[in-house]
Amino acid sequence: MSSLPESFASRASRMTASEIRELLKLLDKPGLISFAGGIPDPALFPAQEFADAFARGLEPDQQAQSLQYSVSEGYLPLREWIVGQIAKIGVPCDADNVLITSGSQQALDYLGKLFLSPGDTALVGYPTYLGALAAFNAYEPRYDQLSVSGNRTAASYAEGAGADGSEVKFAYLSADFANPTGETLGQQGRENLLALSEELGCAVIEDAAYQSLRYDGDPVQPVLATEIARKGSIEECRTIYCGSFSKTLSPGLRVGWVVAAKPVISQMVLIKQAADLHTPSLNQIAVHDVASRIFDSHVETVRSAYRQRRDAMLAALSEHMPEGVSWTRPEGGMFVWLTLPSGLNGAALLAKSIETVGVAFVPGGAFYADESGANTIRLSFSLSDADEINEGIRRLGHVVRTC
Amino acid sequence: MSSLPESFASRASRMTASEIRELLKLLDKPGLISFAGGIPDPALFPAQEFADAFARGLEPDQQAQSLQYSVSEGYLPLREWIVGQIAKIGVPCDADNVLITSGSQQALDYLGKLFLSPGDTALVGYPTYLGALAAFNAYEPRYDQLSVSGNRTAASYAEGAGADGSEVKFAYLSADFANPTGETLGQQGRENLLALSEELGCAVIEDAAYQSLRYDGDPVQPVLATEIARKGSIEECRTIYCGSFSKTLSPGLRVGWVVAAKPVISQMVLIKQAADLHTPSLNQIAVHDVASRIFDSHVETVRSAYRQRRDAMLAALSEHMPEGVSWTRPEGGMFVWLTLPSGLNGAALLAKSIETVGVAFVPGGAFYADESGANTIRLSFSLSDADEINEGIRRLGHVVRTC
Repeated sequence: MSSLPESFASRASRMTASEIRELLKLLDKPGLISFAGGIPDPALFPAQEFADAFARGLEPDQQAQSLQYSVSEGYLPLREWIVGQIAKIGVPCDADNVLITSGSQQALDYLGKLFLSPGDTALVGYPTYLGALAAFNAYEPRYDQLSVSGNRTAASYAEGAGADGSEVKFAYLSADFANPTGETLGQQGRENLLALSEELGCAVIEDAAYQSLRYDGDPVQPVLATEIARKGSIEECRTIYCGSFSKTLSPGLRVGWVVAAKPVISQMVLIKQAADLHTPSLNQIAVHDVASRIFDSHVETVRSAYRQRRDAMLAALSEHMPEGVSWTRPEGGMFVWLTLPSGLNGAALLAKSIETVGVAFVPGGAFYADESGANTIRLSFSLSDADEINEGIRRLGHVVRTC
Repeated sequence: MSSLPESFASRASRMTASEIRELLKLLDKPGLISFAGGIPDPALFPAQEFADAFARGLEPDQQAQSLQYSVSEGYLPLREWIVGQIAKIGVPCDADNVLITSGSQQALDYLGKLFLSPGDTALVGYPTYLGALAAFNAYEPRYDQLSVSGNRTAASYAEGAGADGSEVKFAYLSADFANPTGETLGQQGRENLLALSEELGCAVIEDAAYQSLRYDGDPVQPVLATEIARKGSIEECRTIYCGSFSKTLSPGLRVGWVVAAKPVISQMVLIKQAADLHTPSLNQIAVHDVASRIFDSHVETVRSAYRQRRDAMLAALSEHMPEGVSWTRPEGGMFVWLTLPSGLNGAALLAKSIETVGVAFVPGGAFYADESGANTIRLSFSLSDADEINEGIRRLGHVVRTC
């Protein structure tokens, strides 16, 4: 008689424990300086505001709503607040274009579910967000490398997919301060991306998780705003925008959102209804309460703190890294991406770095849908102060130099 | 160029708006008596306890945990509390056998994802929980009717599946006070179910959403407890138990759990990590706080209230229903299931009932994976007091009599 694991669907073989997460269990070591986790600094959470908002949400006249089942679309005042907010960055829409999700990770899962049958092609950056690959893997896609330089034709993507009997369903990217590279796609790249999606007849998934966290330079219009500017209405657009409060207000409350044309949103509402009914009512009420009071000013506080840390990390890298190491200069977000001399291996470096100097980071290979990127690493500057960043990078420079 | 909906995966065609939900939009009519929604009475939420628990969870020394990312497995003290609770009903296990989910609806989605490839067979009751069919439909299964009477052999199930080139992956049921019928499976039925799953080599999904809400009669051991009693250890078991705080403490907070053998839990942890990272940290902390203080006594309060309403509904049905109508006598839960004379149609009756006497319920056909059950309806007694129940059933009896 077969055991239960033998009955698992074929997708289970693509959902395996991440090597990184295993490595990161070593992070408990006392005194370790960690540039590994891509998580916000809890000292920057608007905690008192949340304490007040949850108390208001649980006042006697609110309990019957805040503790009860609610609609799958999400809490209407929060959806309307998002409509107002996103209008400011060039995306006019209405509340029926907005779905509340349990973090933007859930949006990625639902979009995989919406578009991908086994063998369908998803275009992703090499590297790209590890969690996006994990979400999509459940739907057993084939990946191809997204290039927005205009060097690769739509026909070559379609042929690549067609040779495997599949078609391209979407291109996924984080256009601003991407995880893991910290890079931002310029306006021309966004235009190229939209032209490619138009030729392929595929969707564009714009992961905007870090978009609010710009520290300098001029904002680039969201991909969705660029497409609306071209086409006149969100209803004509192929871009599906995924936002999140995780990097600005609180990740633990799990509140994100999707903005897209109505036929996409209404199908995603059905997916959500079947998958978890709705995002917790009280969390949506509290996030709406806090966001509508302090969002813009709070984001300014967060930006100011992370800007200093990014500056500290870039300065420390310049001072302590040996020749042959290069890195990105992000205008926002949480990450700097290092390319080591081609002989070096990020995973081996991590083991040695934790062991000898107590500094952690994430090896870059995990962010690739293929086997490349072994000589890259991701550093996060979100959790350490300037002194710790300088000390950690000094030690890391020493390890790289002696490898 | 194809539009986005033309790019949707084939599963989208099985995820359509429910007719019932459309009908239920009529429920805004003022003065309507509704036996439709299967939702808890908000007057029974332990709201003050939650207000206190959320305040504690957001105290300064807790914020860095309660508002931050947390592990996909769930909050350890809550998992340990569940271990203690479930031990009392014959399920010895440890915290690694427990995953926290965002309601038990999410557990059903993840179990569909874990087991079902397109065309695989799921055994379900005819009728069964509508939301389970919606969750599983995303993974494009074939359904067959679960019979636990012992009248149908495992071979006949396997042959039915095999004829379509598939195999039976699991049997799903709510063994106690099922939605929609209110019925409880007896000990012999549970034994038959386990024997069937053993012969088929398939899993058993035990949906225990209503299990705590017993109003009279002797408790029947959970299916999982029965299997552990046979086999000695949860690690040998095929049963996957899905619990929920939605019917006892609060549905809006979206906290449920799964208890199963460790290989199942660890694969579900990977699914959850990829799908929404984790259930909100603060919600888990607050639910643990409230559950560990008042769970058993609060459940007694809830039971006592719903027991009266069930009694009122059964009495009113006896008094007001014409001959030819039969119904279940549930020992717990929220539902009574009516079978109308075979000429009558539940959906047509609903339209007439709302129109002429202002009484709503759910037509039973929606709970069937095939086209049967047109002459059934589901009544919920959870939201109305005894007087309203009596008046609503009186009016409904009148409509049935004049149909």
